[in-house]
Amino acid sequence: MSTSAQKLYEGKAKIVYATEKEQEYLTYFKDDATAFNAQKKGTIVGKGEINCTVSSALLKWLESKGIPTHFIDQPSSREMLVKAVKIIPLEVVVRNIAAGSLCKQTGLNQGEKLPFPLVEFYLKNDELGDPLLTRDRLSILNIIPSEQIEQLKQYALQINQHLQEFFQSCQITLVDFKLEFGFDSENNIILADEISPDTCRLWDELEQDKQKRVLDKDRFRQDLGKIESAYQEVQQRVLTQIEKLKNS
Amino acid sequence: MSTSAQKLYEGKAKIVYATEKEQEYLTYFKDDATAFNAQKKGTIVGKGEINCTVSSALLKWLESKGIPTHFIDQPSSREMLVKAVKIIPLEVVVRNIAAGSLCKQTGLNQGEKLPFPLVEFYLKNDELGDPLLTRDRLSILNIIPSEQIEQLKQYALQINQHLQEFFQSCQITLVDFKLEFGFDSENNIILADEISPDTCRLWDELEQDKQKRVLDKDRFRQDLGKIESAYQEVQQRVLTQIEKLKNS
Repeated sequence: MSTSAQKLYEGKAKIVYATEKEQEYLTYFKDDATAFNAQKKGTIVGKGEINCTVSSALLKWLESKGIPTHFIDQPSSREMLVKAVKIIPLEVVVRNIAAGSLCKQTGLNQGEKLPFPLVEFYLKNDELGDPLLTRDRLSILNIIPSEQIEQLKQYALQINQHLQEFFQSCQITLVDFKLEFGFDSENNIILADEISPDTCRLWDELEQDKQKRVLDKDRFRQDLGKIESAYQEVQQRVLTQIEKLKNS
Repeated sequence: MSTSAQKLYEGKAKIVYATEKEQEYLTYFKDDATAFNAQKKGTIVGKGEINCTVSSALLKWLESKGIPTHFIDQPSSREMLVKAVKIIPLEVVVRNIAAGSLCKQTGLNQGEKLPFPLVEFYLKNDELGDPLLTRDRLSILNIIPSEQIEQLKQYALQINQHLQEFFQSCQITLVDFKLEFGFDSENNIILADEISPDTCRLWDELEQDKQKRVLDKDRFRQDLGKIESAYQEVQQRVLTQIEKLKNS
């Protein structure tokens, strides 16, 4: 990455740079970790490389399944070349199993299987604490038309089906995950951001212990320790599975 | 009220007693005021009488408009005789104008007119802080079937239309309000609880000053003072309007 590249945006875990091509951005993955709306801060050594590599592999694989994504290439271990998109300020969360804020807010038990995949929309707004939005609130805030909300939901459900199947092959349970979408230069909605242990809850199916099985950012949120090795474990299983699929 | 009456339930603002008849309860309205999930506590002198009287008048009037309610009689200034209902543990909130938690959670401006009356469902659960529920979360929690959720919404919209018209005649803007419903002995859904300055946001249309116009519990929540006189003002206008309607 040229050090003279123009920084367009710095988020909690990534920096987005302009490139020579107007329709391409370069994303740099940092080791910085934050949780609880950035009230908790830290560093997970090697996280940037792992998240960039896992995300690149999964986005490329989803693309092959017919899901349009912003992924173009992974030019280096911490860098992802992506299509320039205008991000939709919504976090689209898909939940297969009750965990995290869903449990805190509804009293559902951690680990309870949900009767259907729950697709939820949260406003991307740190000041407001990324609030959950009902369909009516989405409609009143008028961020995107309701047909596009429906399109996001359909993409989210398709991605969930693909990822659940994929992670199952890695002997990992996909508990829930967060997606972000954006508009490309032709105003099509495409999948953006990342898919990594930072944005997914992933439980190791080879481990019964409820704390030990956690392979995602909850290790950081809940101070469970061994964060780096959990992230490495995810990377190793994902890359092995991708290789298997290539050769099959 | 017989002092030997069996107390069935004591809430933050009311006590419910059994009566000699199995299908009737006696509700006693207290002066106690709480806000922010009971983190703030106080007393509003005379509130019990006003809320009981205003609620009785409005419930009786809604009943005359075809809305089934639990109201039977107001035997004394602080007591309401009601049908015994099994309360549905949902707070049904109708919003015509953005205020309170809606603004805090969405960034909408206080006082902004909403494009349609917003009907929202909150879980009645102090421990969880009465969380907002999306339709999907409602469905997963499975408190009542979705047809009954739809019925609650329809009742809420009808009640909103009646109350908006009523308060307009009192030169009061009905900003938002909270309803509770329950099942009567024949398992019909009927309106329960109260409709009062504790459960509605009411703004005086004769007053332009944004603090002075507040005629409801926000005076207590926000330490605006003159709480008692605001509640009295609501009672006086409501009773005057009810009298007018009787004589017309």
